[in-house]
Amino acid sequence: MTSYIKIKNHINGQWLDENNGQYEPLKNPSTGAVIGEVPISSEATSRQATAAAAEAYPAWSATPLPKRMNYIFDMQQAMKDNLEMLAEAIAIDQAKHIAEARGEVGRVIEILQMACSIPATIQGETVQGIANNINGRLIKAPLGVFCGVAPFNFPALVFGWFIPFAIGTGNTFVYKPSTESPLFMQKMMQLLVDIGLPDGVVNIVHGDRETVEAWYEDDNVAGVCLVGSTPTAKAIAEGCGRGGKKTMLLGGAKNFLVAMEDAPMDLMIENILMSGYGSAGQRCLAVSNIAVVSEIYDEFVERLLEASKNITVGDAMNPDVFMGPVISSKAKERIENYIEIGQNEGATLALDGRNPEVADANKDGYFVGPTVFTDVTPCMQIAREEIFGPVLSVMKVGCINGALRMIKNHEMGNGAVIFTQNAFYTEKFINEADVGMVGVNVGICAPHPYLPFGGIKGSLVGNNKVQGKEAVDFFTQNKVATVRVVDPKAGEAAPATTADASVRSCVAS
Amino acid sequence: MTSYIKIKNHINGQWLDENNGQYEPLKNPSTGAVIGEVPISSEATSRQATAAAAEAYPAWSATPLPKRMNYIFDMQQAMKDNLEMLAEAIAIDQAKHIAEARGEVGRVIEILQMACSIPATIQGETVQGIANNINGRLIKAPLGVFCGVAPFNFPALVFGWFIPFAIGTGNTFVYKPSTESPLFMQKMMQLLVDIGLPDGVVNIVHGDRETVEAWYEDDNVAGVCLVGSTPTAKAIAEGCGRGGKKTMLLGGAKNFLVAMEDAPMDLMIENILMSGYGSAGQRCLAVSNIAVVSEIYDEFVERLLEASKNITVGDAMNPDVFMGPVISSKAKERIENYIEIGQNEGATLALDGRNPEVADANKDGYFVGPTVFTDVTPCMQIAREEIFGPVLSVMKVGCINGALRMIKNHEMGNGAVIFTQNAFYTEKFINEADVGMVGVNVGICAPHPYLPFGGIKGSLVGNNKVQGKEAVDFFTQNKVATVRVVDPKAGEAAPATTADASVRSCVAS
Amino acid sequence: MTSYIKIKNHINGQWLDENNGQYEPLKNPSTGAVIGEVPISSEATSRQATAAAAEAYPAWSATPLPKRMNYIFDMQQAMKDNLEMLAEAIAIDQAKHIAEARGEVGRVIEILQMACSIPATIQGETVQGIANNINGRLIKAPLGVFCGVAPFNFPALVFGWFIPFAIGTGNTFVYKPSTESPLFMQKMMQLLVDIGLPDGVVNIVHGDRETVEAWYEDDNVAGVCLVGSTPTAKAIAEGCGRGGKKTMLLGGAKNFLVAMEDAPMDLMIENILMSGYGSAGQRCLAVSNIAVVSEIYDEFVERLLEASKNITVGDAMNPDVFMGPVISSKAKERIENYIEIGQNEGATLALDGRNPEVADANKDGYFVGPTVFTDVTPCMQIAREEIFGPVLSVMKVGCINGALRMIKNHEMGNGAVIFTQNAFYTEKFINEADVGMVGVNVGICAPHPYLPFGGIKGSLVGNNKVQGKEAVDFFTQNKVATVRVVDPKAGEAAPATTADASVRSCVAS
Amino acid sequence: MTSYIKIKNHINGQWLDENNGQYEPLKNPSTGAVIGEVPISSEATSRQATAAAAEAYPAWSATPLPKRMNYIFDMQQAMKDNLEMLAEAIAIDQAKHIAEARGEVGRVIEILQMACSIPATIQGETVQGIANNINGRLIKAPLGVFCGVAPFNFPALVFGWFIPFAIGTGNTFVYKPSTESPLFMQKMMQLLVDIGLPDGVVNIVHGDRETVEAWYEDDNVAGVCLVGSTPTAKAIAEGCGRGGKKTMLLGGAKNFLVAMEDAPMDLMIENILMSGYGSAGQRCLAVSNIAVVSEIYDEFVERLLEASKNITVGDAMNPDVFMGPVISSKAKERIENYIEIGQNEGATLALDGRNPEVADANKDGYFVGPTVFTDVTPCMQIAREEIFGPVLSVMKVGCINGALRMIKNHEMGNGAVIFTQNAFYTEKFINEADVGMVGVNVGICAPHPYLPFGGIKGSLVGNNKVQGKEAVDFFTQNKVATVRVVDPKAGEAAPATTADASVRSCVAS
Repeated sequence: MTSYIKIKNHINGQWLDENNGQYEPLKNPSTGAVIGEVPISSEATSRQATAAAAEAYPAWSATPLPKRMNYIFDMQQAMKDNLEMLAEAIAIDQAKHIAEARGEVGRVIEILQMACSIPATIQGETVQGIANNINGRLIKAPLGVFCGVAPFNFPALVFGWFIPFAIGTGNTFVYKPSTESPLFMQKMMQLLVDIGLPDGVVNIVHGDRETVEAWYEDDNVAGVCLVGSTPTAKAIAEGCGRGGKKTMLLGGAKNFLVAMEDAPMDLMIENILMSGYGSAGQRCLAVSNIAVVSEIYDEFVERLLEASKNITVGDAMNPDVFMGPVISSKAKERIENYIEIGQNEGATLALDGRNPEVADANKDGYFVGPTVFTDVTPCMQIAREEIFGPVLSVMKVGCINGALRMIKNHEMGNGAVIFTQNAFYTEKFINEADVGMVGVNVGICAPHPYLPFGGIKGSLVGNNKVQGKEAVDFFTQNKVATVRVVDPKAGEAAPATTADASVRSCVAS
Repeated sequence: MTSYIKIKNHINGQWLDENNGQYEPLKNPSTGAVIGEVPISSEATSRQATAAAAEAYPAWSATPLPKRMNYIFDMQQAMKDNLEMLAEAIAIDQAKHIAEARGEVGRVIEILQMACSIPATIQGETVQGIANNINGRLIKAPLGVFCGVAPFNFPALVFGWFIPFAIGTGNTFVYKPSTESPLFMQKMMQLLVDIGLPDGVVNIVHGDRETVEAWYEDDNVAGVCLVGSTPTAKAIAEGCGRGGKKTMLLGGAKNFLVAMEDAPMDLMIENILMSGYGSAGQRCLAVSNIAVVSEIYDEFVERLLEASKNITVGDAMNPDVFMGPVISSKAKERIENYIEIGQNEGATLALDGRNPEVADANKDGYFVGPTVFTDVTPCMQIAREEIFGPVLSVMKVGCINGALRMIKNHEMGNGAVIFTQNAFYTEKFINEADVGMVGVNVGICAPHPYLPFGGIKGSLVGNNKVQGKEAVDFFTQNKVATVRVVDPKAGEAAPATTADASVRSCVAS
Repeated sequence: MTSYIKIKNHINGQWLDENNGQYEPLKNPSTGAVIGEVPISSEATSRQATAAAAEAYPAWSATPLPKRMNYIFDMQQAMKDNLEMLAEAIAIDQAKHIAEARGEVGRVIEILQMACSIPATIQGETVQGIANNINGRLIKAPLGVFCGVAPFNFPALVFGWFIPFAIGTGNTFVYKPSTESPLFMQKMMQLLVDIGLPDGVVNIVHGDRETVEAWYEDDNVAGVCLVGSTPTAKAIAEGCGRGGKKTMLLGGAKNFLVAMEDAPMDLMIENILMSGYGSAGQRCLAVSNIAVVSEIYDEFVERLLEASKNITVGDAMNPDVFMGPVISSKAKERIENYIEIGQNEGATLALDGRNPEVADANKDGYFVGPTVFTDVTPCMQIAREEIFGPVLSVMKVGCINGALRMIKNHEMGNGAVIFTQNAFYTEKFINEADVGMVGVNVGICAPHPYLPFGGIKGSLVGNNKVQGKEAVDFFTQNKVATVRVVDPKAGEAAPATTADASVRSCVAS
Repeated sequence: MTSYIKIKNHINGQWLDENNGQYEPLKNPSTGAVIGEVPISSEATSRQATAAAAEAYPAWSATPLPKRMNYIFDMQQAMKDNLEMLAEAIAIDQAKHIAEARGEVGRVIEILQMACSIPATIQGETVQGIANNINGRLIKAPLGVFCGVAPFNFPALVFGWFIPFAIGTGNTFVYKPSTESPLFMQKMMQLLVDIGLPDGVVNIVHGDRETVEAWYEDDNVAGVCLVGSTPTAKAIAEGCGRGGKKTMLLGGAKNFLVAMEDAPMDLMIENILMSGYGSAGQRCLAVSNIAVVSEIYDEFVERLLEASKNITVGDAMNPDVFMGPVISSKAKERIENYIEIGQNEGATLALDGRNPEVADANKDGYFVGPTVFTDVTPCMQIAREEIFGPVLSVMKVGCINGALRMIKNHEMGNGAVIFTQNAFYTEKFINEADVGMVGVNVGICAPHPYLPFGGIKGSLVGNNKVQGKEAVDFFTQNKVATVRVVDPKAGEAAPATTADASVRSCVAS
């Protein structure tokens, strides 16, 4: 479909080959075929990128806000004008279903529109009359160079979470896409060039762990952002702690769906299919643990199995199939291994997705079909660990409190959803589900970009979330000025005497 | 003056001796005399405290907000009613000048008054009509148990920065005061008991590094706060990064004062005395580097030396002296050592504070008098490192840009002040001084509690500052709910078809 | 119980008799006995009060914010310390049940606590870098003298809504209590004097329409606040429009309760009693129209009548009765007249409260007992007009949409409540009930003081509501500064050439 | 240049001729020639427009916010794409200089970009845990139909202030442009049609006083906005007060410029030319009173006269002239009359703009040249009244306090600017200049659209300003919900007993 894809770094406005010559193959997960190559950048290249960003920073941060915002408005317009091209870029290397790829680009346009609110959300504060002739002022100042690391599964979304908010607030950026899905950012970067974004404001380096570790004690770096696994998030937190860097670190997940006795059943089943099997389950908000109250457990299992069996599997570019492949042969093995573990733990393998029937016969693709375990208990490994594939674990609970306890005791805390029509259950779940994002009667509890995205516990290292107006807080510092003015005509303010307690109070810190 | 002081831990509403029997002597820095003892708590005791806080958390976080706030209102009233007693507690063990101690308590009352704004600042967000029958809601939810570590120099202030905001937002707390100034918190805790604060909401453990390290991977702990040195801040950041804890870490400082050609001279000299010699220079916002434009350099040096020579040194409880001792003999040695370093580096020791004349003859106290170096350059050690004593380094600069460059190149970035009457200098300094807090015509740029306090670069590890309405953000998570409602009469919402891009968009994450 | 009550004006720190010698008798509604007298101030006296407030304004508005806030903190403490005395003051002249009077004072303490958030909510805004060397700043500046008019039924509450927010933000105030319930403010004003509030910051004039009309074109007056009837609100709006004054005008009400098929019946009946008969129905949030879905209509009517018959009526100071008298003989006549109207319109008078049995035999008091009409239709006069007495109108509706239509078509829009357990009904009612305040499963939808209070349509003239952080917006103006600074060294900024479009843009307004 | 211009009403998606057949001629002020006609709509037509807007309201207000916002994004893109066409439309009928017309369109694009922040600024509030199982929520709900009236001098700007914020928040709109400059809105409306804005969301009626008065008691109208004269503003306030409508009413102006002894002279003179003579002085932020401290008075007058004499006057479409005509022959007469008044009052007519030399010889145009009075005193009529033409009144003051007193005593309070380099003067002026908008070293103190625009005193009737995030508050109501949930399993909440004070408290309002 496309010619050989040569991914390049982009530093200081230039498309660059990697000097060290190290490249990894880029594959099409639907077929297993090599379709291109991705550079694995050295530490030196990584620091070259942060140096470029640092050099671009003074002029960029001094650019008047209205002018800086104009670039963000133009970015969203460029994405609208190139939606199909960008969606294809996502579908080609990640094998995300083309309809979902379009959806992802559409969502990023909405994120950019939220970033267009920066003039409202970056406003600082004033306090008049703290004392005679003394005022206070707070400005939200940019911090310098931020670096970001993206996972394979949302190449556009994570771009949208990091870059518009970082640069809109006056910082510059170095971005490392996933080596498994670098194509979107290659296309997007060209659009940024085309709208005239100054050189060095956004830079791309492709690579692996070494590329990232170079930033921990790099004086040019103010902070590091990640969407990735929890161990990676903790490793970055530790390194950045040592180096004194700010961090915004979204980790792993294991999301519960709670089905109450009054759940709207058709809607719920439909949503589980999209949430559990969409993107082949490779989403940090995919439902994977399903806690069902006993009144409707049997009916639920029957309905879920029936619907799951109808899911079609095949090439991601084929609009007629429901589910594409997983990202790599390694991922496929990991998922199949978990299926075996579940069986060994005593869960009932009610539907086995291994070796699925593939619609369009790309047998070399990395396919796993819909898989359902029933009779799962919360201490089983398949209920505790993130499988990141189309595998559902169904558990029985007595009441909402039982479900809430499971959620509280789980190490992860990204999202959780409930299906119910009752207002008490709704409010109780919002308050007590020990996660960062709650959904009610939705399969995936991703907030609209008007509100922040992020978990708690193992799913978020630190306390900084992406998107929403809150994202502006992460990418700025609250710089405060205490300003006394002195009347040039009245002479200087009479110096305060040192024994006066109120003066001492004023100096107390 | 007072009887032997036995400091105790306070856990779950009980005053407790330390089980391991380890205690350190508590000394009066004005005389060197032992006046009491402080427990050095074991890791087990430290975890006992966090367990108590964790047990108190569910009930406390579920307490209706108006009731929780009533405790904060009562705390500020109790401090008003006991101001003198609390000020004495600060003066006794830390040897802070009694007038400054009163000032510190007064400032904490203002901090508590700002914490009384939590009902306004903890309000979450709503977004109606994200899609048909779907709304978004954000609530600022508490996180659990926070732990805090205080330095010796502001026992009341740091209490005020951490505890009212942490517990007002619904968390519970474990607090480790400095072993060198534990008395204030012993008194304050009793006031908290007296106003009826529930057991376990605030706990105290005294101790050292081990006491703190116990928290890094303690499941009961959500986050750790520190006001301390930069190396300690980075060590906690690293440990908490590994453990996935939130952090609010204020580190060291080295603050510049910039004197412009139009500076109001009398006011400036008066402010330098209070800033540089108040608390014997042991303040994270004390001025220590003074950059003077060449037009007024000679006049400035003359005026500064003349004023510095008139500073009286003596017992902290003596209201007639200006400056008390430093905190310990070790501190005294460190400061004296820096004076020697400065001489060796080639700075001019214009005023030597070693072996000062002490007003009331407590020669065994840890006294260092006002010390002034002139002809200092920014790369000298005395200009780069935090001396934390009454030592000033005066440098000559050509213009405001030279001063701003020095500030930018310095590793620390807590505060910086300028003395000028010019509006351009004022705005330029606010924008470009590469620090967290800026002052104009003030000796100490501590913001009023209505605004946040904290630095950047080496002075703040991470990006979370204390006090102001921003403090509420640190002690809460932005929990988001996406709520769809289903009409019970109209039947369920028609399930979306899976091939529809707009639906896919909705699930895109 | 108390000696003869002589109500006085309070102007510029002085308690004053009214010069014109006009007084009205003050009566005890439980007995009809004259217990004191209230001045009816002339236009001259009214303007004397605004002149005093105007004179106090410059110093008060220039008082540093922390100091001004200390008065608000002290006011709330003084109310806590004098709760019982203040509650009695309310009960004596208004004949509000003593338990409700205590409740009212308690609520005002909460309002004052919310006013203590002014330092957080009065903060202005900053925008850096609008253009090179140009910043923007917004400050929330006080406006001058505000005047306020209170109704008889909430003498403490309306004080709390107007005065703490007005003066906390830096304005001064002239307050006209109701001549029917002036005693609370007489007591409260003395507390304000006792805490040391400067003279002229709060002034009281008693009087009638003339007293108020004097403000419309009084140059000393910035704005007028009212809680009262809709015709009075519109008359003030018109007069203040002519005079260019700001207004905050809460008018009349007629509040619906909607009972759905899944309403929690016991809770609902209990709440209707408190809402409909508490304060003898003289509350702007009292339920008066009850729309019941047909499924539960008959059961509801039976339960309501049974419960209503058990309501006891008697002296307001008697803690054993449920309901006291209405405010005046005139009010009693008005209510009895509406009962006759209802009968003539064809509604069923299921319970007649005229000539009730009075528990403690004060037959000369102005008593009306619980009254219930059933089979009411929305176009009846008793459903359209505010009766302001213990009279309930019960109507049958088919579904929630029918109830929402009734609410939409009603001229008033203060509050409306629904009783249901369903999440869809809950959200639909919040969104679609065409009122300013919505309640779910509460009898009275008064928001906690953390949020604003006010209606729409006929219930609020203009768009300004009381309490909450929003109240600060009414009592301040958003004053904006656009500040360019000019480098004293670089010479003046090169003047822009006039033909340049971008410059013209900058001047475009 | 253009063919005959037939202006039409636009109601419910249709371009309509006025039924009553009344039209007024549209003239080119540069030549006096008739170039088209404008309908003068009857009361019936006016109400037809509000009825159309009311009909469009339910669907528009229920449109999901992201979809509604997309129209605002598209509007700003459409204006970018049609900037030149729109600028010409402004220049043709109003005779605004073409460079300024381009500037005005550019500014409106920035206003639209600020309106794109509505998703951030319309967010409501949540308060969890007001009591057990009770939460509070505030939503910013639209109000219905707003109407707006524009002046002739900023046809695009006033559109930008009213319509994007009104409709972005969910209201619908009826707009009455000035009959002297209707062409911009005719063009702009077509762009709104082209981007697919639903019928009836924005409607246009042309007309005069009667057209507007029809709205005062029109049940379809929620509020009325005006930019116009103060008498008109007060008349609308009075009428809308009677009818209970919300209002946002910007009135007249008379703006001071204060020149301090350290003012940057070149910059100041340049800015005065643009501010005082741009748009021929027909701007509500034009400088007209100039208060100069005595130290620089003589130099200032000399420089001002010299520069003023060089101003060229001519056709608005001629890019080579500086200043075009005033709007009408009536305006020309009014201005000339004021010049005579000034002479009679004793001011020195230092430069007389009557019968100016016109560059391109369109002698029939309505031209008045730069006019300067010196030796003006604040009580002269030319200093008190808005002349709305290129006439400057120069006064001498002793110090900043004298200038501030003049500003305070003036009936109007739109804007005021100071030229100074001193920080004390800067802050004092920001705090104490008794106006709504302050400028420092700028000729025109129009805030950037990131902040609100509006005056105080006679310049703003009421307290609602345009643009900025604050504009969202005017176009929405703060609707509050108090939500109790009832556990379906635990049975109903135990009904509270009526004698309980805390319960009574809960019902206290």
